[in-house]
Amino acid sequence: MGIGIDLGGSAIKGGIVDNWGVIQEERNKKTRTHMGYDQVLDDLGLLIKELHQLSPEETVVGIGIPGILSPDGGTIVSCPNLNWKNQPLKKDLETRLGLEVRLVNDATAACIAEAAFGSTRGKKNSVMLTLGTGVGGGMIINDRVIFGAHGVASEVGHMIMEENFYNCNCGKNGCLETFASATALIRYCQKQLDDGMDSTLRSMNSFDGREIFGAAKAGDALALAAVNRLARYLGWAIANINDLIDPEVFTIGGGLSGAGDFLLGKIIAETKSRLTYPAYAIPEIVLARFRNEAGMIGAAHLSRFI
Amino acid sequence: MGIGIDLGGSAIKGGIVDNWGVIQEERNKKTRTHMGYDQVLDDLGLLIKELHQLSPEETVVGIGIPGILSPDGGTIVSCPNLNWKNQPLKKDLETRLGLEVRLVNDATAACIAEAAFGSTRGKKNSVMLTLGTGVGGGMIINDRVIFGAHGVASEVGHMIMEENFYNCNCGKNGCLETFASATALIRYCQKQLDDGMDSTLRSMNSFDGREIFGAAKAGDALALAAVNRLARYLGWAIANINDLIDPEVFTIGGGLSGAGDFLLGKIIAETKSRLTYPAYAIPEIVLARFRNEAGMIGAAHLSRFI
Repeated sequence: MGIGIDLGGSAIKGGIVDNWGVIQEERNKKTRTHMGYDQVLDDLGLLIKELHQLSPEETVVGIGIPGILSPDGGTIVSCPNLNWKNQPLKKDLETRLGLEVRLVNDATAACIAEAAFGSTRGKKNSVMLTLGTGVGGGMIINDRVIFGAHGVASEVGHMIMEENFYNCNCGKNGCLETFASATALIRYCQKQLDDGMDSTLRSMNSFDGREIFGAAKAGDALALAAVNRLARYLGWAIANINDLIDPEVFTIGGGLSGAGDFLLGKIIAETKSRLTYPAYAIPEIVLARFRNEAGMIGAAHLSRFI
Repeated sequence: MGIGIDLGGSAIKGGIVDNWGVIQEERNKKTRTHMGYDQVLDDLGLLIKELHQLSPEETVVGIGIPGILSPDGGTIVSCPNLNWKNQPLKKDLETRLGLEVRLVNDATAACIAEAAFGSTRGKKNSVMLTLGTGVGGGMIINDRVIFGAHGVASEVGHMIMEENFYNCNCGKNGCLETFASATALIRYCQKQLDDGMDSTLRSMNSFDGREIFGAAKAGDALALAAVNRLARYLGWAIANINDLIDPEVFTIGGGLSGAGDFLLGKIIAETKSRLTYPAYAIPEIVLARFRNEAGMIGAAHLSRFI
């Protein structure tokens, strides 16, 4: 059993997760970001206490956060979705709770959930890519999460691919996530519409990643071009990561992974054409098992891979 | 003390290396590649026996090889410089010698030499790039070498950057080593000369990487453009590797690293302009300490990082 929290920009989700990866109890509340750090800290503390009363034998709580941690894992260096900078969340929560608090990046939590109970279970070396608003990543090598010397390893979304028509939120140009996220899909389609391309998307006031995938599956030429472009950059990035890490398996998670085999097949084809040793070093590429619950499940079982 | 061998395409170099990284005894012979695997095996066996007689208490010998090993580290899957494919070198040598034989890629051996005694000593996470005929790499994370699931991790030279005017030996187009090796420098200069560009290099029948650096330092515009191009791609690749691995330090070795601070300064500048977290996650970038002896020294002390 473990207590795991997924601290997101819109919701705080907490669960008691058993040793088979099943959420036995779940408690959620809205993240009151606009009320500042202390309010969110209060809300988080109350939610954890509630879960701990249900499972009082637990001495540790794991929390996945949508941002960057200090190398010692104690301080949130930067968390744009919560407008937090340099917040000592571990110490602040431990003081309130009398429990040990372990923080990780949310993509790392998802990577752990997959390795413990999901699509990469039993593999010693795995790389996860989460495709959502941005592109996140997690890496497990020899059954241990890679955090990096400054706590910012596995930032796959910011690998520079080539020049793009808009800048990344990080300030750079050409980051993978400007080619391969939901945001990237939407901006690419919007730009092509602005340039006069015909598409069923034109009749919609706005569209999200899921709707672009829907249009692509229905044969819309613009939506299909956008999806193919995303898959091409993902295949390129995965082949490059493979040159460095050579894992048994890559797993694709996040909201866009809901597009299923339609997306996966394209990513696999684009990766294979760029592998350095296609005869004897071919990674598996699979869809993640968990979606919204990944952060909670991984956070509850961090100790397995840390 | 340790016995380390650097098996190269032109020479077999063996050394007894003390616990401070100093080569106490060295024995070299030409690699008789043209006479086939069995002859090289004989020569290698004799050289190791000779060294072992000088240091009979050793029970292990480490060998750096210029190629790809099987995941179990026992078989040379591919070694283009020696025209070897699928040779069970570990077993063949152990049968002859009665010693334990450990094989590693030569860039990994160099990476270990630097981590044990050289430029990255004391750092738990380091990445090495060797700039020679090609571009090789080695990675140490949490004091352990990363080999990968198929034994081909840290192949930094084959990360695809962008389209290039000639294909890589591996069959792909756009590999880092076609932009950032001695071969890349020479081919780029040759192409610019063919296209009519003026340069002091034109008066030479042929030129190598060292001579291109010499011309660049002397102010030759073409040579300088070639060196700046190489540094730009290296900085780009290092920033991307940094996004994944986030090591304390990158070290630059191989023949081209002889260009010293002239090259290093350019690589550092090109890397810094592409870092994702330039405010708090800046890797050190340094020149390797060892050059030709790196393979031997690292091979003699593999066990420290395996």
